[in-house]
Amino acid sequence: MSLIQEKTRQAIDILKEQETDLWLTFVRETSGVRDPALDFLIGDNDLTWFSALIVTRNGERLAIVGNLEKEAVQQLQVFDEVLGYDSAMSGLLRDTVARFNPDRIAVNTSRNNVHADGLTHAMHGFLQEYLAGTPYAERLVSAEPIINALRGRKTPSELARIRKAVEITDEIYKKTFAFIKVGMTEIEVGEYMLKLAKEYGVGLAWPQENCPAVNSGPNKVVGHNGPTEIKIERGHIVHFDFGVKYEGYCSDIQRVCYVLRDSETQAPPEVQRGFDVVRAAIEQSRAAMKAGATGNSIDVIAREVVVDSGYPEFMHALGHQLGRVAHDGGALLGPLWEKYGDSPNQKLEIGQVYTIEPHVIVTGYGCVGLEEDVTLTENGAEYLGKAQTEVALITG
Amino acid sequence: MSLIQEKTRQAIDILKEQETDLWLTFVRETSGVRDPALDFLIGDNDLTWFSALIVTRNGERLAIVGNLEKEAVQQLQVFDEVLGYDSAMSGLLRDTVARFNPDRIAVNTSRNNVHADGLTHAMHGFLQEYLAGTPYAERLVSAEPIINALRGRKTPSELARIRKAVEITDEIYKKTFAFIKVGMTEIEVGEYMLKLAKEYGVGLAWPQENCPAVNSGPNKVVGHNGPTEIKIERGHIVHFDFGVKYEGYCSDIQRVCYVLRDSETQAPPEVQRGFDVVRAAIEQSRAAMKAGATGNSIDVIAREVVVDSGYPEFMHALGHQLGRVAHDGGALLGPLWEKYGDSPNQKLEIGQVYTIEPHVIVTGYGCVGLEEDVTLTENGAEYLGKAQTEVALITG
Repeated sequence: MSLIQEKTRQAIDILKEQETDLWLTFVRETSGVRDPALDFLIGDNDLTWFSALIVTRNGERLAIVGNLEKEAVQQLQVFDEVLGYDSAMSGLLRDTVARFNPDRIAVNTSRNNVHADGLTHAMHGFLQEYLAGTPYAERLVSAEPIINALRGRKTPSELARIRKAVEITDEIYKKTFAFIKVGMTEIEVGEYMLKLAKEYGVGLAWPQENCPAVNSGPNKVVGHNGPTEIKIERGHIVHFDFGVKYEGYCSDIQRVCYVLRDSETQAPPEVQRGFDVVRAAIEQSRAAMKAGATGNSIDVIAREVVVDSGYPEFMHALGHQLGRVAHDGGALLGPLWEKYGDSPNQKLEIGQVYTIEPHVIVTGYGCVGLEEDVTLTENGAEYLGKAQTEVALITG
Repeated sequence: MSLIQEKTRQAIDILKEQETDLWLTFVRETSGVRDPALDFLIGDNDLTWFSALIVTRNGERLAIVGNLEKEAVQQLQVFDEVLGYDSAMSGLLRDTVARFNPDRIAVNTSRNNVHADGLTHAMHGFLQEYLAGTPYAERLVSAEPIINALRGRKTPSELARIRKAVEITDEIYKKTFAFIKVGMTEIEVGEYMLKLAKEYGVGLAWPQENCPAVNSGPNKVVGHNGPTEIKIERGHIVHFDFGVKYEGYCSDIQRVCYVLRDSETQAPPEVQRGFDVVRAAIEQSRAAMKAGATGNSIDVIAREVVVDSGYPEFMHALGHQLGRVAHDGGALLGPLWEKYGDSPNQKLEIGQVYTIEPHVIVTGYGCVGLEEDVTLTENGAEYLGKAQTEVALITG
């Protein structure tokens, strides 16, 4: 079974569970603005003209597309029925919706999850117009809960791809730590990692501008910045943020190493302490993760560990879901800040994959940020790779 | 000057010309849903948290972004001012808009041009909320005319990239016509073209599923379908639709060849006639293209040539603009069909790049579809490459 066949079947189960009659994905010219839900409906394909992809609680899967794309959509073997049109689709859409006569029509608009928010404002206007005068114009609801479940609950084949992405990322880090020498620039190290990714035949989990991020020493501004001409020196913490995309699924992992000074055989106490605090924050929050807990209840645990240890609060969420994109939306291990909307209040579910990524700044040395990828099972959150449990030491 | 520096400067001129005070691009998590206007504002970068990119008629360029991305956005050297935030941006946005005190705020929502329609319905709601209680909530207008002008009017460096994409596509076609042998499948020919694209170091203008399209003989369903196991046989027209992406800019070209039967030295009269009609449709419509003409007035010319010659009307637009994507939106050489909205009524401007792509089906032989890329100059529409003026003959 193809991934889109698998995921559209899963969507039907979710519609049943959520008692929603019909899920409508309404798009046009998806090479221009692409609804993220299309990955689960038509894969890598694009749709050029106004198109409607419908999945119903009763198990029907129907597509309305331009005639020139009818054949291509039929070949996906996902939709039982593919209706084509040449000049206008509004009548066809109205008739099709009337045929299913749904009480609730879930459409891809969402305040909290950008990956459930593919319907543009203008397309929402068209939909209202096309359904005007029917009872259905008043029955539109957000597909956010459907898409959150669909994206969040990984099927075995999705999880296998993420595991593989994590495994490759771990190997790239291992080789990179063996490669680093004092005097290299962040850019040189970053280029080596990109070369390795190419050799493994994988893509990047986010744009190359800051994938990998390589941050050496205390003077680098840490954030979504790429590698610079800053040189790796003795006494630097070198911090990395990197992820790869394997068959459409991402890893997202942060690592740190410390470059020993001539006199040193281990990291200085301040660096070790920062590392230990970050590790403790990860471990304690991971241990608390279980189905039904809110994302926020996990975030506060790590945040407290960091702040109680005397470090400033990290000004980002503890972790996000991971899947087809590095920030996969839905429930978030995050604080209740305006910009995160309702996502931190949402509940953890079995089958979801999260990052856990607190950080602290160690004054005079650099950033200690670790990021582990975990999946939620019935036995709690399990690491998808090998967590970093010790400061990696670079002799240089 | 980088391309985004060049295009944001051009945007200021367009704001002046259109007497619009402020252009606001309001986005979040652009790796999930990407506003196509970002290509001209931040290039290939992504923005993670709620962000506002502002260009004003007075020449200011200002960005509000999450603190972790402030440095990366500053490095683009596009924005005079980059404001960062941690938890909430609504106050910052409100204050900034109030500071500029615009009469009209152009936002990225558009009924006619998907490439000016990056604002999702939910983001439109947030914008209304963030500006609620100020006079500015009532001053939102569509940025469609700004973006149409910005995308349409190619700068010299944009045009040079398209020319290069066209040149490479021409070369790939030349090599492909020399490669084709009777008995090869469409897929084999398609793979050869992909191999050549890789050798030239270029990307594809649209997804590989149907780039190239290779359609051999009378039994293939022509449309946005990829190559199949259908074999190239004597007496087939083989029709291609293919485009490459060179440094972010696309070509989009259709070509046809005819596979000679043993007894033949030229294409049969029916095939030749189909070709001549398509050529005439292209030439007559191209000759009529001039600044100020509506796209529809050009479409009708080609449509008439085809229909008056006794072929059924082609059920798609005559041509579209070409740029960062193959279907670049804005004014369209198209019929007045619902699905095309107001785009065929829009006027041609100097500096735009269009495809011209009528087709006819020659019963028993296959599809004759030609597609030429042209740019509108003060002297009319000029071919960007060498137009196909004769049926290419394959001896097989």
